[in-house]
Amino acid sequence: MTQAMRSDVKHFLCEIKDGIATVRLDRPDRKNPLTFDSYAELRDWFRDLVYADDVDVVIFGSNGGNFSSGGDVHDIIGPLTRMNMKELLRFTRMTGDLVKAIVNCGKPVIAAVDGICVGAGAIIAMASDLRVATPEAKTAFLFTRVGLAGCDMGACAILPRVIGQTRAAELLYTGRSMSADEGERWGFFNRLVDGDTLEAEALKLAQQIQSGPNFAHMMTKTMLAQEWSMSIEQAIEAEAQAQAICMQTGDFERAYNAFVAKQRPVFEGN
Amino acid sequence: MTQAMRSDVKHFLCEIKDGIATVRLDRPDRKNPLTFDSYAELRDWFRDLVYADDVDVVIFGSNGGNFSSGGDVHDIIGPLTRMNMKELLRFTRMTGDLVKAIVNCGKPVIAAVDGICVGAGAIIAMASDLRVATPEAKTAFLFTRVGLAGCDMGACAILPRVIGQTRAAELLYTGRSMSADEGERWGFFNRLVDGDTLEAEALKLAQQIQSGPNFAHMMTKTMLAQEWSMSIEQAIEAEAQAQAICMQTGDFERAYNAFVAKQRPVFEGN
Amino acid sequence: MTQAMRSDVKHFLCEIKDGIATVRLDRPDRKNPLTFDSYAELRDWFRDLVYADDVDVVIFGSNGGNFSSGGDVHDIIGPLTRMNMKELLRFTRMTGDLVKAIVNCGKPVIAAVDGICVGAGAIIAMASDLRVATPEAKTAFLFTRVGLAGCDMGACAILPRVIGQTRAAELLYTGRSMSADEGERWGFFNRLVDGDTLEAEALKLAQQIQSGPNFAHMMTKTMLAQEWSMSIEQAIEAEAQAQAICMQTGDFERAYNAFVAKQRPVFEGN
Repeated sequence: MTQAMRSDVKHFLCEIKDGIATVRLDRPDRKNPLTFDSYAELRDWFRDLVYADDVDVVIFGSNGGNFSSGGDVHDIIGPLTRMNMKELLRFTRMTGDLVKAIVNCGKPVIAAVDGICVGAGAIIAMASDLRVATPEAKTAFLFTRVGLAGCDMGACAILPRVIGQTRAAELLYTGRSMSADEGERWGFFNRLVDGDTLEAEALKLAQQIQSGPNFAHMMTKTMLAQEWSMSIEQAIEAEAQAQAICMQTGDFERAYNAFVAKQRPVFEGN
Repeated sequence: MTQAMRSDVKHFLCEIKDGIATVRLDRPDRKNPLTFDSYAELRDWFRDLVYADDVDVVIFGSNGGNFSSGGDVHDIIGPLTRMNMKELLRFTRMTGDLVKAIVNCGKPVIAAVDGICVGAGAIIAMASDLRVATPEAKTAFLFTRVGLAGCDMGACAILPRVIGQTRAAELLYTGRSMSADEGERWGFFNRLVDGDTLEAEALKLAQQIQSGPNFAHMMTKTMLAQEWSMSIEQAIEAEAQAQAICMQTGDFERAYNAFVAKQRPVFEGN
Repeated sequence: MTQAMRSDVKHFLCEIKDGIATVRLDRPDRKNPLTFDSYAELRDWFRDLVYADDVDVVIFGSNGGNFSSGGDVHDIIGPLTRMNMKELLRFTRMTGDLVKAIVNCGKPVIAAVDGICVGAGAIIAMASDLRVATPEAKTAFLFTRVGLAGCDMGACAILPRVIGQTRAAELLYTGRSMSADEGERWGFFNRLVDGDTLEAEALKLAQQIQSGPNFAHMMTKTMLAQEWSMSIEQAIEAEAQAQAICMQTGDFERAYNAFVAKQRPVFEGN
């Protein structure tokens, strides 16, 4: 698959440059809601990313001052109220598959969050590896506001591991907005930056990571998810194997040679 | 079981009004210690709560300026020092069953913590879903002070998920008191409020949650506990099923209809 | 094994006094790198500690203003670049075995961190139960800088449980240094103290814990690790059994008798 093909998407924006893909939803006038189509295409795009050699890091960006308003009320919630159980489960599995695809894509994903970031939008941010936000970011897991449970797309498993069990419980029971300051203080956001530097800061972080050993990054991402429900003993053995694999990459040798030569290593991702 | 019966308890106080049950221990002169009787009755009460339609949210309150001083030294610790292993295990399983009953009761539990909150009292606060406290709250997992281990009633599993592994380890090894400020900063307390507004603030939070979709809240609570030791993949599938169930409730439709009519939804918990 | 024998080590320093062992690496001129020899001897020493009655608490200290610079580039990284897979896996398993030995040694381990604390040094600090640091502490999981993955010696499992998933991910992907302030704010360090009081403060904390019920501490440490991947139900049952065992120790009775006599209990660790 060529670079041109990979960024040839219909239901969201995608730009690929120097190993960094920047994707963003594209209905800024309505704060970038998700639709059945953009859900499915995002899922397929992240699934395909596993095999992509032209993308090392992904930025999931905002658009028009907002990240995403989540599942569209008219396009998604209306139809859902008329579906039978088979159809509902097909939908909730598809949305869950998007999170699985982000988690399993093998490339670090950085969410750059401005403004509204709610519902499934908050989930996409949560499923990303790193998050940079503006002081204007308002993140809400507001499923409870539409009569649903907080257990949506992995939230009851992932959010407690990011901000702690009790803070997660409050956000999921009340659906209230988490301010950017709370998000930084609680470990949801890695850092806050001004709105006019959000893109540049996310890109800088992406470049920093992209210039590293990308095969090893893939292994880090894999193991951060894989060890979730292992015992400590199992996790340590799993890492012994994973790191031994990385020690046979060229990047490990490149780093050593650069060190000996008192140079900065240039990694090649293999 | 009628409302009158459910609040007809002997060893603690219980008031039920508008879907909110407020329980509290009732020995304020001794800072509300637990006894064999109150342990057992609380366990039974929380177990019974699963089937209760008259209670949607529980407040576990303080009494006379204190939450609880934990297992009574004379009533509980003395007898324990004279028990054989079979009797000891029966006791530790009963106390553990209280935590299991709180975790599995299907209704959000809010601890309103003032003053002393130690030993089994701290465990009850920890086993609650949300916690509001006053600046005077002093929380100590002081099992080590009575010659016991920190692994009491689930503390080594639950506390690290609330405040992190290292802070939990310090509290459990030293038995030292966690200040209210630390508790807020570390994510143990959702928020601090003045002593004279503690009851009102806990009630306001309870009312806010109670006015939401209570069937969905039950599912949120269930999944927050259930996904504890699942892999990410398992958790996402479990949530796809749980949320699909919630999408067939009337509350989901009520929320959608209210949105279309530009009204506030009135949830009915089914 | 006598006290003299246990502290008779060749590749690190070890002092044992009043139930507290203080160990530290001993190449202060090179910021205390680890070598194949010190890895192996530390692993054996911590493994042996399970059976040691002369040590209740361990301090892993700094030396010459630094904690550890991690695996030595010349002594370790160079040879690794020339090993085959069988040899590499033997190495990564040995380093993982050090973490397993620290986790399973049954005695609380306090890291006293000054200055440089990077690579395998950061892992040793992370694998400790408690951490005290100076404002000069610079902690970096810099595996990515040498072309490797963040999944080293259990980091992808342990670090997220200490500082949260997102902050851990940033440190592991970028290899950047965590400042002492961040470490305290994020829950990595229990507390910061001035460099000239680091030793004294770590010792004071060690003495406080050592004066407690050391058999029960062993159980706390065991369960903090053991319950990692259990369900809540399993964890509560496991604690019911573990605490029932502790209730048959003399220390539990000593605490009760001291309380009745209005005295301070003197624990004996059995």
